[in-house]
Amino acid sequence: MSKNVDTELNPSAAVAAWRALLGEAHVFIADADLVRYARTCSNSSRWPLAVLKPGSRDEVVGIVRAARQYRTPLYPISAGQNWGYGDACPVLDGQVIVDLGRMNRIHEVDRELGYAVIEPGVTQQQLSAYLTEQNMPFWCDCTGAGPNSSLIGNIVERGFGHTPYGNRLQTISGMEVVLGTGEVLGTGFGHYPGAKTTHVYPYGVGPFMDGLFTQSNFGIVTRLGLWLLPIPESFCPFLVMFAEDADLLGALPELRRLRMQRVLHSVPHIGNDLRALASAGPFPRDRLPNAARLTPELRQQLRREAGIGAWTMSGAFYGPRGQVRLHRRLLKQALRGVRANVIFLPPMVLKLGGWAARFCDELGIAPGLGKKIRAAQALAGMHSGRPTGFFLRGAYWRRARGWPADLGDEADLAGDGVGILWMAPILPCRAEDLRQVNEAMEALFTAQGFDCHVTVNLINERALAAVYTIEYDAQGSEEVARAVACYEQGVEKLYSLGYPLYRAATRGMALLNPAEEDEFWATVTRLKAALDPDGIIAPGRYQPKVF
Amino acid sequence: MSKNVDTELNPSAAVAAWRALLGEAHVFIADADLVRYARTCSNSSRWPLAVLKPGSRDEVVGIVRAARQYRTPLYPISAGQNWGYGDACPVLDGQVIVDLGRMNRIHEVDRELGYAVIEPGVTQQQLSAYLTEQNMPFWCDCTGAGPNSSLIGNIVERGFGHTPYGNRLQTISGMEVVLGTGEVLGTGFGHYPGAKTTHVYPYGVGPFMDGLFTQSNFGIVTRLGLWLLPIPESFCPFLVMFAEDADLLGALPELRRLRMQRVLHSVPHIGNDLRALASAGPFPRDRLPNAARLTPELRQQLRREAGIGAWTMSGAFYGPRGQVRLHRRLLKQALRGVRANVIFLPPMVLKLGGWAARFCDELGIAPGLGKKIRAAQALAGMHSGRPTGFFLRGAYWRRARGWPADLGDEADLAGDGVGILWMAPILPCRAEDLRQVNEAMEALFTAQGFDCHVTVNLINERALAAVYTIEYDAQGSEEVARAVACYEQGVEKLYSLGYPLYRAATRGMALLNPAEEDEFWATVTRLKAALDPDGIIAPGRYQPKVF
Repeated sequence: MSKNVDTELNPSAAVAAWRALLGEAHVFIADADLVRYARTCSNSSRWPLAVLKPGSRDEVVGIVRAARQYRTPLYPISAGQNWGYGDACPVLDGQVIVDLGRMNRIHEVDRELGYAVIEPGVTQQQLSAYLTEQNMPFWCDCTGAGPNSSLIGNIVERGFGHTPYGNRLQTISGMEVVLGTGEVLGTGFGHYPGAKTTHVYPYGVGPFMDGLFTQSNFGIVTRLGLWLLPIPESFCPFLVMFAEDADLLGALPELRRLRMQRVLHSVPHIGNDLRALASAGPFPRDRLPNAARLTPELRQQLRREAGIGAWTMSGAFYGPRGQVRLHRRLLKQALRGVRANVIFLPPMVLKLGGWAARFCDELGIAPGLGKKIRAAQALAGMHSGRPTGFFLRGAYWRRARGWPADLGDEADLAGDGVGILWMAPILPCRAEDLRQVNEAMEALFTAQGFDCHVTVNLINERALAAVYTIEYDAQGSEEVARAVACYEQGVEKLYSLGYPLYRAATRGMALLNPAEEDEFWATVTRLKAALDPDGIIAPGRYQPKVF
Repeated sequence: MSKNVDTELNPSAAVAAWRALLGEAHVFIADADLVRYARTCSNSSRWPLAVLKPGSRDEVVGIVRAARQYRTPLYPISAGQNWGYGDACPVLDGQVIVDLGRMNRIHEVDRELGYAVIEPGVTQQQLSAYLTEQNMPFWCDCTGAGPNSSLIGNIVERGFGHTPYGNRLQTISGMEVVLGTGEVLGTGFGHYPGAKTTHVYPYGVGPFMDGLFTQSNFGIVTRLGLWLLPIPESFCPFLVMFAEDADLLGALPELRRLRMQRVLHSVPHIGNDLRALASAGPFPRDRLPNAARLTPELRQQLRREAGIGAWTMSGAFYGPRGQVRLHRRLLKQALRGVRANVIFLPPMVLKLGGWAARFCDELGIAPGLGKKIRAAQALAGMHSGRPTGFFLRGAYWRRARGWPADLGDEADLAGDGVGILWMAPILPCRAEDLRQVNEAMEALFTAQGFDCHVTVNLINERALAAVYTIEYDAQGSEEVARAVACYEQGVEKLYSLGYPLYRAATRGMALLNPAEEDEFWATVTRLKAALDPDGIIAPGRYQPKVF
């Protein structure tokens, strides 16, 4: 236990203490420095009191101790790329951002046992590049978030990737956490000096605590052991185009069967036509200047022009050569009863396609081919440890300032004024549930005048993580108001239908507690008092009772 | 939050309150009723103050409230079959056992999504039989513990099974827990009224708490969603006999490679020769009347007589037919470099073997065949959802009162006076670690005059769960003293080598905290105060600071 100290609310004293601790160069209070952190894609800008950039675990401890002493609330971020879920913004105004981006060391990669020990500033791009440089026989699980998003940031938010290691909470072992008390906790076996098993067996002995430090505000994770995916003998990405809604719904029982049998043993991603259209170009303002939503006719026409169906599934098979061959066959068999076009994209096909596309580009023929090949390559990369910013372009659908054909890996969605809000419920993996939620969301988006962008992920063997995205023009105040209404009504609707969210936006924390009496959130309050008695870490984050 | 009540230490008032709540028939205080609970295989008998048998969640709430009011500590058990780890015994004398055996309802089995919602009294045998009766297309993951052991009891103790669902903590979703405050907590989405996803997605939204209620004393789990293994198209158990230690150690990198590639995607179990001998007969007292340990010569001779190698691995392949065929081939290929005999036992072979054995029995020829076939059938059963007491016979190795050739499914090891102590460290899955720990344990067991029974389980893709078993004559006081010394020295040795235990015996709780300052256990103390402020649930269980 930390010793009792007299505490007083005194932010200036806190800033002075942090300056003494970190040096002037790592403490920011000027508006010009803070503005970047206040930007948001989700219309809930919060102005931080200051920004601190610690370089080590011990500096984080010092920051927390001073924050306790002077009762000044902190808000830790890793890379600040929680796009659409709050970005780098604190939950409430006046919190002090602890930007962990400088803590970007890869402490260790174990070549035999296949794990990395990383700090919160380590990005997916950085780990991916490191594994390639060191010629390690492993891939890192990637998400469609930008290459510069933080691995730890995504994991503590319980994001997911798309490889067989996509259920990321099952691929971590051994956390180091600076608690709200300022004490340093090693989870699993990490607290035993000399333990050789901290990063190979997560549970340790005694209560298994890792889950406590995800979607919470009890501590700051400063280090974590992350398991790496062994590069398989064979790897084959695939696309499945479903002609209409009924075809996806008809296929869902078969997809669940394959997922439960672990033929589909990664996390396939299914997007509707709008997701595909938004990744290839902006909302056609020229054709619909006064609407934020496609007409049914135009949507059908754009679908035809793009040569896509109502839904596109992407995924990959991994394993011994004969197994990948077998799984490909089983996928095709399973989809026989519906109108679905299955396309396999083994590495050799993508390589040949790349050559063909360059050849056609030079001759000026088949102008669409290069685009399609690049999309397939980005997809294959994401499924094999190479992160890409390619899929972030879809977030620019409604942006009045234009759609970025060449969005680089350094994309800054909040800085670019993108307007985006996600609602991400979990559904049982059943056609009936998906149909019901899709219809309810479609009705709501229609009423509010937005296109209903949908993705559905086979997140585990029994559940779907669906994401309903409101894409809006962040410069159009009337459109912003409608987007917020759509979001708040949508969350309420999802709860009332029995499909709570798997993840919340900063602006949505108050919506997590629809019932007046809820023992779960009361327990969160008790745990908060035990682990952060002065409430100085991210007050309000996954803590709806604060509102 | 529960309301503040005036509390006083008053066990008789507590007993009166419990009688009013449960009825006389479910409150026991007579020695004749308590003695069963005080029996132990691990030489740390504890005498309970009383035994309560609630029939419902609400009765558990009432028990906890009265316990709080009269400050009388409880000790919940499910089936009381935690053999060798403390059995049904409380950690400390004078705790009141809450025997949850009457709460044995299977609330629901979802045929589409493959989960069961069960209470703590549900045994593996019960769920297995239910799935068969209802013709459900699922198996339940089994352990080598007896058929009457509790599924929830095993899970909250973080036991493991041997199918692809053997890492049991990854196959649960949605707990109901009566906290030490008397409040009822639903984890995951379970606290949202009407949520349809409680049993398909464990994490919910906000902190993921399930891990907190494993290996802890913060609450009593009264209900849980358990995922069921879809019956695969093809299933093939296997045995691998490794000739000598060097062959197992030589094979370990290849086994790890297969495990990481998910060719071995269940939890294979590897036992040394002593484990196999102990499952087939007792310690040969006739040949070695004054020893508790075989001589090297006799051990070699028994090994030859039994036709076994130094180590035997058992496991199974599950999946589509072509995949099982491929995995069988890959296993044989991987073991080419060592002296290992691979035997596949597909269901048809076992059936034919069963007929052949009965035929031979009738003719009185090949007397060993029936025994071997029965062992193989028990093994295949355990890997395919049919629990067996077959493997418990190994615990009777040193029992002076005799070895049970026909141990039924109702085996009561503590009642039978079996003497057994387990030390179960986690090791990185590397030959060097296994060699070092085996040698250290062998030296210690030799010094104390015991046979070193060893099993090694490929518990996940990177770690081994090893179990070193001290089998002793519980009636021989000198032998008991040596067994306890061996246990305490062994645990200390494992910690000093860097291999902490994955699970602790009741008698070993004080050994969990070798360091004076340990922030993990300090955090456990803080969490205990938050969730069980009066410390009435199982004081001392995974709470070494109490000692």
